Amino acid sequence: MNKNLCVIGGDLRIVKLVEILVNDGYTVHTYALEKAESLNQYKDVIQHNNIVDAIAESDIVIGPIPLSSNKVDINTPFSKENISIEDLFLKLDGKKFIAGSISEDTLKLVENKNIEVIDLMTREELSVLNTISTAEGAIQIAMQETLSTIHGSNVLVLGFGRVGKILSKMLNGIGARVSCEARKESDIAWIKAYGYNPIHLNSLDDSIGDYDVIINTIPSIVLDSNRLDKVKKDCLIIDLASNPGGVDRDAANKKGIKTIWALALPGKVAPLTSAEFLKETIYNIFKEMNI
Amino acid sequence: MNKNLCVIGGDLRIVKLVEILVNDGYTVHTYALEKAESLNQYKDVIQHNNIVDAIAESDIVIGPIPLSSNKVDINTPFSKENISIEDLFLKLDGKKFIAGSISEDTLKLVENKNIEVIDLMTREELSVLNTISTAEGAIQIAMQETLSTIHGSNVLVLGFGRVGKILSKMLNGIGARVSCEARKESDIAWIKAYGYNPIHLNSLDDSIGDYDVIINTIPSIVLDSNRLDKVKKDCLIIDLASNPGGVDRDAANKKGIKTIWALALPGKVAPLTSAEFLKETIYNIFKEMNI
Amino acid sequence: MNKNLCVIGGDLRIVKLVEILVNDGYTVHTYALEKAESLNQYKDVIQHNNIVDAIAESDIVIGPIPLSSNKVDINTPFSKENISIEDLFLKLDGKKFIAGSISEDTLKLVENKNIEVIDLMTREELSVLNTISTAEGAIQIAMQETLSTIHGSNVLVLGFGRVGKILSKMLNGIGARVSCEARKESDIAWIKAYGYNPIHLNSLDDSIGDYDVIINTIPSIVLDSNRLDKVKKDCLIIDLASNPGGVDRDAANKKGIKTIWALALPGKVAPLTSAEFLKETIYNIFKEMNI
Amino acid sequence: MNKNLCVIGGDLRIVKLVEILVNDGYTVHTYALEKAESLNQYKDVIQHNNIVDAIAESDIVIGPIPLSSNKVDINTPFSKENISIEDLFLKLDGKKFIAGSISEDTLKLVENKNIEVIDLMTREELSVLNTISTAEGAIQIAMQETLSTIHGSNVLVLGFGRVGKILSKMLNGIGARVSCEARKESDIAWIKAYGYNPIHLNSLDDSIGDYDVIINTIPSIVLDSNRLDKVKKDCLIIDLASNPGGVDRDAANKKGIKTIWALALPGKVAPLTSAEFLKETIYNIFKEMNI
Repeated sequence: MNKNLCVIGGDLRIVKLVEILVNDGYTVHTYALEKAESLNQYKDVIQHNNIVDAIAESDIVIGPIPLSSNKVDINTPFSKENISIEDLFLKLDGKKFIAGSISEDTLKLVENKNIEVIDLMTREELSVLNTISTAEGAIQIAMQETLSTIHGSNVLVLGFGRVGKILSKMLNGIGARVSCEARKESDIAWIKAYGYNPIHLNSLDDSIGDYDVIINTIPSIVLDSNRLDKVKKDCLIIDLASNPGGVDRDAANKKGIKTIWALALPGKVAPLTSAEFLKETIYNIFKEMNI
Repeated sequence: MNKNLCVIGGDLRIVKLVEILVNDGYTVHTYALEKAESLNQYKDVIQHNNIVDAIAESDIVIGPIPLSSNKVDINTPFSKENISIEDLFLKLDGKKFIAGSISEDTLKLVENKNIEVIDLMTREELSVLNTISTAEGAIQIAMQETLSTIHGSNVLVLGFGRVGKILSKMLNGIGARVSCEARKESDIAWIKAYGYNPIHLNSLDDSIGDYDVIINTIPSIVLDSNRLDKVKKDCLIIDLASNPGGVDRDAANKKGIKTIWALALPGKVAPLTSAEFLKETIYNIFKEMNI
Repeated sequence: MNKNLCVIGGDLRIVKLVEILVNDGYTVHTYALEKAESLNQYKDVIQHNNIVDAIAESDIVIGPIPLSSNKVDINTPFSKENISIEDLFLKLDGKKFIAGSISEDTLKLVENKNIEVIDLMTREELSVLNTISTAEGAIQIAMQETLSTIHGSNVLVLGFGRVGKILSKMLNGIGARVSCEARKESDIAWIKAYGYNPIHLNSLDDSIGDYDVIINTIPSIVLDSNRLDKVKKDCLIIDLASNPGGVDRDAANKKGIKTIWALALPGKVAPLTSAEFLKETIYNIFKEMNI
Repeated sequence: MNKNLCVIGGDLRIVKLVEILVNDGYTVHTYALEKAESLNQYKDVIQHNNIVDAIAESDIVIGPIPLSSNKVDINTPFSKENISIEDLFLKLDGKKFIAGSISEDTLKLVENKNIEVIDLMTREELSVLNTISTAEGAIQIAMQETLSTIHGSNVLVLGFGRVGKILSKMLNGIGARVSCEARKESDIAWIKAYGYNPIHLNSLDDSIGDYDVIINTIPSIVLDSNRLDKVKKDCLIIDLASNPGGVDRDAANKKGIKTIWALALPGKVAPLTSAEFLKETIYNIFKEMNI
């Protein structure tokens, strides 16, 4: 088995990933990570000055997560280099390229090329693993932003999807009184089975004034101005949902209800754990590809 | 709102359901439950001697679960009456009929009739709720059939579907060391997120000899003769999977490994809870039908 | 280190203990265990026909738990032999003797003898470990004797001592709604800290009618006739307290409230685990004695 | 029942306590809290300009926690007033005085006076309740100071007293792999019963290199220079023990091991919860005194 990998660009999670891969026995050829000083101590991290040399050493090239923030260049926060997506793809002929959050436009660029592109963010297992960090990050915020303990607090989790499930479990584990909202009767049944207090969306208004902390995971406005009128004035709202979020933030502001919109928590609160999860997912990909 | 319901036949769960419905304010007209003595004490249970009279009092008729065991007559363990499915359907014109495990053949009988048939067993929320009883029943069996405590035992749950999820939670809650087997990487991720020891099917053989109790939820032979060779001789195997189950029972017998095939646990270990779950599901149906 | 031990008499737990000791590398010399067929397969179990020969092989002699049921002979359920305590002690000169529940009268017999007697039942760690089996046994009984699941049931634990603590944890872990009664404010604080519903003895009467299962651990009559009047008719009461127990059983009978007085659960529900706990405690004794 | 109370001085917890007492129906006469603006909105908070007037209104006077930081004046962070302990006591004749952490020297001052002094910090239930905030505060610190999630981390809790017990439960609840160290065999048994990994002090050195986070609760140097040599370089140490703490901080610094000495967490991380706990304890005192 070939133990050479190539890594181009990326943030702290990618730096930590490189360290993990080297500790697992890989030789990692890097480019555009020259400012990551922690990599200097590893003799099996070969930092190249030239992208072509770095890529030449491995059939597999790992790129940033997300690949790009501006749709033109790839993300290279640990480098002074600018690398355009187009230019990178010109050099990846015959390679497997693993990165994250690759846009449809970008995928079109490789349609007629001999490049196998794998988007880590489409991997179900990584989404599940990342809920661990998201849930824990939400709890950290709740601890920091309140004058009370989570233990003994009335906490409402809006939505019982991936994040809702793990978040409820952790909140319960730390001693909160956990209520979970759902729309589907089968989710209400799951909430009972797991031992939380089930709240059907239809009757949400009855209890919405009882909570000390409300954490939203639903990507549509559940907490509109009318509902916010019923929320306790000293309630903390944490919104984990991506755009547009689940809270009418203007209304919340006017009513003086503290609201925190917390996105992309895994990379922020636990970059090392995120790197571990990336590694596990990449190894799963290797297994499936018989690499 | 009309608070009259009709119930025809059924087992102990149906008897308990009638009691719950009456305690909730319904008047329940029954037929073919005359041997259920506990119903005599309720003045709002009207026991009819004539099926037509019983049905006449309500738009909604609740039947047995399962509807029939012989595909001809409905199940009436608390009655001396024999009621054929065909005959029953002749009397249900214009009614809503709620029962359980109604076969395709039976459904064909109503195709051209003015009867709305609802099968409780197709309701997702009831399946989820029943996993609670199934999981707890499995734990009861494990306690009864071993000389050790579950606390501190190495327990393997095969399959991480509905039953696997709740069973693992309960086993963990009672102090077992819980390993869960799954095939999909996303399920392995869930198992990690919930804090159990994940075992990929591919590497099941590595650890299969470590368990004191193995509980199967997968309806195909996972524990074949080869795997059973590696299982500890004093391991207890509980198979919760419907036909054909997940264990080569002949092989297990020959090797002297105690194996219990435990089916239909909810009605057996917790008929009262089962009746509660039926009630909740029926009320959900009422809500959806604006009854 | 001398790896010879002597075991005289005892019940199934002692038989299992012998097996564990042999598996740990000891040679065990037995007397009055000749009916324990499982021991025949171990070549390092030396079954002697003569008590003197058995004792001669080791400085440490392990006896029954409890030592005696009639204050005259030691317990030998796996033997046809009768061994009086007095006679046994005559043969133990210069030995360390480890057994369980040794009465004060018996201890007087050794006062002027050169025998070091250790009562396992006075070891704090064994008491704690045995609560695991007691708690799990109580849950098994609750599962067997009710028509409902423990999950979702209202369960009251009377007393928050050793058994109360572990029992509450397990009940919570399986999904019960757990209330714990205590008298001391500091115990009420612990109950809150662990996340159960605290019930002060002074206000017990307010909620006593709410429970589906009540488990008593207090060795004095808490559930007297007056309190029993307020208990639900279909409540199950499990009394784990030693004589006189905590329930007025006559009154409960008259009122038709099912009451189970469950004593000595560890040996009954989990003899193998009990043997493991005995082993751990004996090894702790060895360590303390530099054996 | 007289619903007048007097509160003199104190920090944010005392301010919150006043709010809670007023919400419970008390009229609270305050002195030396004039900078606590939140109190202005309560009509049942009577802020006096004169200590004698404030005290005159109630038989019960509540003072700061801790009473004093300099052994001369009482703590009045929300006031410009200086109040000496001696002067205060001159005005408390015939009163009950409730405050916290009252020194032996101070207690001597009241020996011949007609003042009943109650130190909240000697109340067992308050100590237990405060462990909730301490434990949660420690977890908050662990989340903030590491690049990993607590979930899945190897965490060692040194000491299995009050804080150790609740901290272990919460860490486990959030998904950490929890090991607990203890010296007594009975504590080791408790640790097993609760399902954590038990580590005997005698064998602590064997595993000390395995942990990602170590939280100490023992008030003597457990982590000396020798043990610190074996700790992982990126391990986070949180020391919750009061002076001298349990960590050789100089040695830890030299070895580059991040160590945080976190004292008095309840007031810092959860002042509102602390006020609730004070209220509960004060009400218990009232009950015991038949107030």
